[in-house]
Parts: sequence; C-alpha cells; structure tokens
Amino acid sequence: MDWVISTNGPGLYEFTDEVRARVSGTGVLTLFVQHTSCSLLIQENADPEVRDDMQAFFERLVPPSDHPTMSYLRHTYEGPDDMPAHIKAAMLPVSLSIPVVDGRLQLGTWQGIYLFEHRAMAHRRRVVGMLR
Amino acid sequence: MDWVISTNGPGLYEFTDEVRARVSGTGVLTLFVQHTSCSLLIQENADPEVRDDMQAFFERLVPPSDHPTMSYLRHTYEGPDDMPAHIKAAMLPVSLSIPVVDGRLQLGTWQGIYLFEHRAMAHRRRVVGMLR
Amino acid sequence: MDWVISTNGPGLYEFTDEVRARVSGTGVLTLFVQHTSCSLLIQENADPEVRDDMQAFFERLVPPSDHPTMSYLRHTYEGPDDMPAHIKAAMLPVSLSIPVVDGRLQLGTWQGIYLFEHRAMAHRRRVVGMLR
Repeated sequence: MDWVISTNGPGLYEFTDEVRARVSGTGVLTLFVQHTSCSLLIQENADPEVRDDMQAFFERLVPPSDHPTMSYLRHTYEGPDDMPAHIKAAMLPVSLSIPVVDGRLQLGTWQGIYLFEHRAMAHRRRVVGMLR
Repeated sequence: MDWVISTNGPGLYEFTDEVRARVSGTGVLTLFVQHTSCSLLIQENADPEVRDDMQAFFERLVPPSDHPTMSYLRHTYEGPDDMPAHIKAAMLPVSLSIPVVDGRLQLGTWQGIYLFEHRAMAHRRRVVGMLR
Repeated sequence: MDWVISTNGPGLYEFTDEVRARVSGTGVLTLFVQHTSCSLLIQENADPEVRDDMQAFFERLVPPSDHPTMSYLRHTYEGPDDMPAHIKAAMLPVSLSIPVVDGRLQLGTWQGIYLFEHRAMAHRRRVVGMLR
C-alpha cells in the first residue's frame, strides 16, 4: 500500500481521504515517508491559516542556508532550501502509527494527515503504508 | 484500550502506571493522542525539574502569539496559546510505539510516559492504545 | 532483538547495516531507544556534511545550560550538556516504525538509520527492536 503525493513548493498537503479510502480491517496503520527532505504530520484540518502559520514558523526556526544566521552550514551545494529541509525532516515525523478499528482511522475530530513538503522545487513524494 | 487524561494548564502529566496496568502479552503498543494541541512524550521520570525545564524551553521556543516575535501568526482568534500549541503538537510526538514483552513495557530505567499539555485551559485528553 | 551502540560524544552514529542484518520476513519493524538523552533518526546517508550540519543546528537551537540564553534552566547538576540532551531527546524520535517486505527495510534510497547522541561523555545506548 503506498501513496504518491505531488508537491509544488513548501507547505502542507493533506491526504487523509486517500488514506481512508485504502484502509480496511483492524490494526495499526504505519505510514512511512521514503525521503529525507519532507515529513509526515497530523494536524488540524479545519482552519487553513493553521497550515500557513505552521509553515511560517518552521521557515523562521530553520531559515534558508543563505540567511546570515545560518552561515555555519556546510551542506549548501544543493541550494539554500536543502539543508534546512533535512533539519525540518529530522524534527518532524518520518513515520506515523495510527490505530484502525473496523476500517475506521482512529483520528480525532480535527486531525488530518499531511505530507509536509520542505523543498522549493516540485517533487513526487512516496509514502509507504502497512496495516498490521 | 484508551485513557482520558485531565489536564489543568501546560505541562507534563505522567500516566506510565495507568498504561502498565492495562498491558498484557507481547507485541508493540501504539499510543495515539487524538488532539492537535497536546503531545505524547517519553521522558525522564526522576527529577521533576526536568519536566519544568522542558516546558520552559518549549514556551520560549514557541512563544504565545501576542509575543512581539510571533506577530506573523494569523490563526489567533482561539487565544494566544492556541497556534503555539499546534506548533508544539507538530514538533512533539502524536504517536509512540513501545515494545512489550510478557506484559512488561520495554522502557528504560528512567523513562516515563507523559501527556504534554500545551493549552492554558483545562482539557480532557484522549489517548488510544492498541497492542499488536 | 536489540542493538547496543557505543557513542563517544555528540553526533550521528549510523547502524542501518546492523539493523538490516537482523531483519527477516514481512511486517513493521519498531525501533525504540531506552534512554532520555539520545534519539533515533532517519536521515540522509550520502554526504557526511549533512550529519555535521544537523548536529550544529541542534547545538545552537538548544545550547548548553551554561550558555547565557539558557539561564532559566534548573536541572543543571548533571552537567551543562544534560538538560539540553533531554530537550533534544524530546524533539527527536524515541521510536521509529519502518515497514519491512520479505526481509527488506522499505527505506528510501538516501535514508539511513542513526543513533543521535546528545551527551558529551561516552555512552552505551540500547535500542530494542520488534517486528510484527
């Protein structure tokens, strides 16, 4: 079971419905993203401003490597957004474990599942899933 | 299997014993918190100052939205502690996976299981568990 | 199934091959580190500068407790690197869930598995694994 999420710049891309459509039975669903410059995230799916603010915060916490405060970074040849993307990918989940009962994801009322893209260029991101 | 943890302001609420009391058999215990403004955390359960320092650090890393450095935030109508709570909930675990052998959680000597509340108001937080 | 990783100061210690050598069958591999001052991490295993930059970032985000900006910390008697180590251990994964198919870890091309040591002194770190 896997999903490919096309991204077009930094931000949160929801794929809760795509996950829901593929899940049946009871067990724990593991989602695992096979990249080191984007993340998985469970977050509020009500107000889109939450997603904008989320990205704005992490952009400030880990600025591009050409920002004056980041001059100590050495891995810069893949672009100013690359090393910060790896750092964000370390801070935010690479895997999620979600209980499923009778085919229903046990998410809270306001929880959605997101791919959090950290790179500027368009990417196709692969998420592997397994229910056990 | 689930737990409801009553919180009364920001901080770490231990519920290791409550988890231990409900676990039997062998497998991986998944804990999943059904909210987007609190977190799960495994941390030192010896010195209470560790918990105070932990909260103090995250309070400074993600200040309330009425703090001058946070003026870029837009999702502010649910109170100055709301958007920072979502950000902390993104940075800290929403799910934990803990091996269990013959009913014993495979925690290290100093590890305890906590609900990390990020909101100021009292809340009842629901954690879903599944052993597989 | 467990691994002991000897560390000799802060930084990323890869043990992908050691994990690969012990995994067979199909399921989800849970890795769980039994300590509160180091972390698990999945990160790029190509350019070693990524690991150096990673550590440099977190060293600046959470400076030693004798740094002027950290004077609010109270849990300081185990050394200036101790409380920052607990904070980093909260921000970075204590557990990882990795799908395995026919004995093959479903890692992406550039993903490696690391023990991220946050303490200055040498340590022996224990990681427990379970495939279900």
